[in-house]
Amino acid sequence: MKIDGTPYRSVWVDEQDGWSIRIIDQTKLPWTVDILRLQTVAHAAHAIRSMQVRGAPLIGAVAAYGLALAVRADPTTRAMERDASLLGETRPTAVNLRWALDRMLAKLRPLGDAARLPAAYTEAGRIADEDAAQCEAIGAHGLPLIAEIAARKSGRVNILTHCNAGWLATVDWGTALAPIYKAHEQKIDLHVWVDETRPRNQGAFLTAFELGKHGIPHTVIADNAGGHLMQHDEVDIVIVGTDRVTRTGDVANKIGTYLKALAAHDNNVPFWVGLPSSTIDWTVSDGVREIPIEERAATEVTTITGRALDGSVATVRVVPTGSNAANPAFDVTPARLITGLITERGRCAASAEGLLGLFPERRAA
Amino acid sequence: MKIDGTPYRSVWVDEQDGWSIRIIDQTKLPWTVDILRLQTVAHAAHAIRSMQVRGAPLIGAVAAYGLALAVRADPTTRAMERDASLLGETRPTAVNLRWALDRMLAKLRPLGDAARLPAAYTEAGRIADEDAAQCEAIGAHGLPLIAEIAARKSGRVNILTHCNAGWLATVDWGTALAPIYKAHEQKIDLHVWVDETRPRNQGAFLTAFELGKHGIPHTVIADNAGGHLMQHDEVDIVIVGTDRVTRTGDVANKIGTYLKALAAHDNNVPFWVGLPSSTIDWTVSDGVREIPIEERAATEVTTITGRALDGSVATVRVVPTGSNAANPAFDVTPARLITGLITERGRCAASAEGLLGLFPERRAA
Repeated sequence: MKIDGTPYRSVWVDEQDGWSIRIIDQTKLPWTVDILRLQTVAHAAHAIRSMQVRGAPLIGAVAAYGLALAVRADPTTRAMERDASLLGETRPTAVNLRWALDRMLAKLRPLGDAARLPAAYTEAGRIADEDAAQCEAIGAHGLPLIAEIAARKSGRVNILTHCNAGWLATVDWGTALAPIYKAHEQKIDLHVWVDETRPRNQGAFLTAFELGKHGIPHTVIADNAGGHLMQHDEVDIVIVGTDRVTRTGDVANKIGTYLKALAAHDNNVPFWVGLPSSTIDWTVSDGVREIPIEERAATEVTTITGRALDGSVATVRVVPTGSNAANPAFDVTPARLITGLITERGRCAASAEGLLGLFPERRAA
Repeated sequence: MKIDGTPYRSVWVDEQDGWSIRIIDQTKLPWTVDILRLQTVAHAAHAIRSMQVRGAPLIGAVAAYGLALAVRADPTTRAMERDASLLGETRPTAVNLRWALDRMLAKLRPLGDAARLPAAYTEAGRIADEDAAQCEAIGAHGLPLIAEIAARKSGRVNILTHCNAGWLATVDWGTALAPIYKAHEQKIDLHVWVDETRPRNQGAFLTAFELGKHGIPHTVIADNAGGHLMQHDEVDIVIVGTDRVTRTGDVANKIGTYLKALAAHDNNVPFWVGLPSSTIDWTVSDGVREIPIEERAATEVTTITGRALDGSVATVRVVPTGSNAANPAFDVTPARLITGLITERGRCAASAEGLLGLFPERRAA
C-alpha cells in the first residue's frame, strides 16, 4: 500500500544488487521510515527476533528470504537445515514461520547444491507474491461485510481493530486491514477505531501510521475503551488478524484480542478474523490449552518509547522502580466468540466444519 | 497506609496552621512524593480538575475541605452555594463529589454566617474520618473472600485489580485494596496483578506505588493481559473500586473495567467491587444508559509521561502526528457480570434487592 502516495511492500529484493533483502525497520515507525538491508541469515533472524519485522505472514516471508541468504552463503543440506532451525526459533507463536521454512526446505532438499540458490530466491519470491495475492483476496472477501453495513446504516461504518494486521504485518494489503483498504477504494465512508495495543503499541505506532499514510480516517483509543464504544453502538464490526488459527477455529492473536471478542459477543457486534491459510495450524484442536504463548521481556511493559518534545526518540519508564511486570504477548480467542473467518478462499464459520468447507483437501489428511 | 514505613492519609489539615489543606500531588507519583498546600476553594477545584487528587471518595473529601476553605473566605450563603457549584462541576462521573457537597450544604445552610467556619471544618473532618473508617470496614468485609481462597488453595492468592482504588483514591485504606491490606496484615500469602490502566496509568503509577511502598507483592501488566491470565487460572479473584453504583448494582469505573468483568465471567473468576455507600446513586437504574461518561483530553492518549534515563520526568508522544485519539474515561459494568459488592456494612449481591438488604432505610425512599 502507499506511504504518502508511493506504493511499498514490507519486504523486497534490492533492485540494485538483485540479492540482498530490504525491509522497513518497524521498530522505528511511526517516527522514521528506515529501510534496512539484510545480507545474511543472521541479519534475517535478528530482524524477526527484534521485531524489525513482525506480523505472522511477514515473518514467514522474511524467514523464506532469510533461508535464501543462508543458501547463498552455504548451499549444503547440513548448513541449510541448521539455518532453518535458527530462523525457526526466532519467534514461537506464529505458525507461518514454520510453514514458510518447511515449504522452502521441501523445495530445496531434492536439489543439488548448485541449483539451490536460484530456486531459493524463486520460492521465497513466490511465498511473498502469494502472500500479497492472498491478502488482496482476503480484502475482496471481507469487503462485502463492510459494504453490507454501509448499505443499511446512514453515516460512516465504524470498524475496530487491534494490533497491526495491515500491510506492514504481511507483504502487502494486510489481513484485517485488507477489507478496509478495499472498502476505501470503493469510496465507502468508513472510520477505524485503532486499539493502541500495549505494551508494544503496534496499533498506535503501525496501524495508525499505515492508515494515516494511506488517507483512511481513524482514531486511536486506549485498549480499555473498546467495550464502552461497543455498548454505545460506536462499533459496527471488529476485524483482527491472527498469528495462528486452530483447525477448530480458535484464534491466537495479540494479547487483548480475547477481551475485545468478549465485548463484541456481549454487544452483538460481528467479530471477524482475517488470515491467509498459511496461518491455520491443522494439528491443533484446543487453542487455549495447546498454542504456546510467548512471554516477552518485562521492559516492554515498564518502559515506553515515543517522540520527545524536541523531536528526538526517547524512552521513559512508566512503572515504579522495584515493581515487576509480566508480558504475555498473545492470547487465544475461543471459536465460540468469533463470527467468522475471512481467508483467501472466502469466508467461513470459525469451526472445524467451516474451515474444511473452504479447504476440503484437508478432509483426507 | 504507609510510605516507606510512615503512615499517611491522602488529605489532611495542616498541623502547623490548623486550616490549610494538605494533599499528595498524585500527578507527580510515583516519581516524587510532593505535598501540596491548598489555601483557597480555587486551589481545591484545581486539585480535583487536574487530578492532583482523584478517586471518587477522595474527591468527595477534598471537595468538602474545599468548601471549608470557601467559607473561610466568605461565609455568606450566596458565596457558599456559588463555590459549591464550582466544586461540583470539576468532575462529572463520581457521585461522591455531589454527595459530599450536599452534605456540607445541608449542615451549613441552617447556621448563621459566623458559625459556619468551625462547622465546615468539623463536617469535612467527619467526612474524611468516616471515609477512612468505612474503607477499613470494606477491608474487613472483603477479607473473608481472600481468606477463603487462601484456605482452599495451595500457594499464593492472586488478585487482579484495575486502576487505583487504594488509599490514594480514598482518605485511607482504599476500597478495592482495603481487603488486600487487611489480608496482608493477616499474613495471607497474596500477590496482586496490577492493570497498568491506560491512558493515565493509575495502576502502574499509583497502585504499584502504594503496594510497593507498603510491601505487598505485585506485578504490573498491560490492560490487555488479564483475560489471558484468567484463562490460565492465574487469577483467583478480581476486586475493583467504582465511581458510581446504580441502585440496581451497575458499576461505573475506570475505562476497561467492563472488559475485565466479561473475562472474569467467562472464566468463573469472582468479580467483586469495593465501595463506601456514598458511591451509590439511588436515583439511577440503568448504568449504561444513564451515567454520564467523562470524555477527557486526547492528549492523555497521544502522550505519556514517565521517567527518562537521566532521571528527569519527561513526556513523549506515542501516536503519530496527524492521528486523532478519543478518551472516554469510564465504562459501566452491568450488574449481571458482578459477583457482589463489598460495602462498609457488609457484602451483598449487585442488585436492587442486594443493596436494599444492606441499606433498608432506602426502601421507604
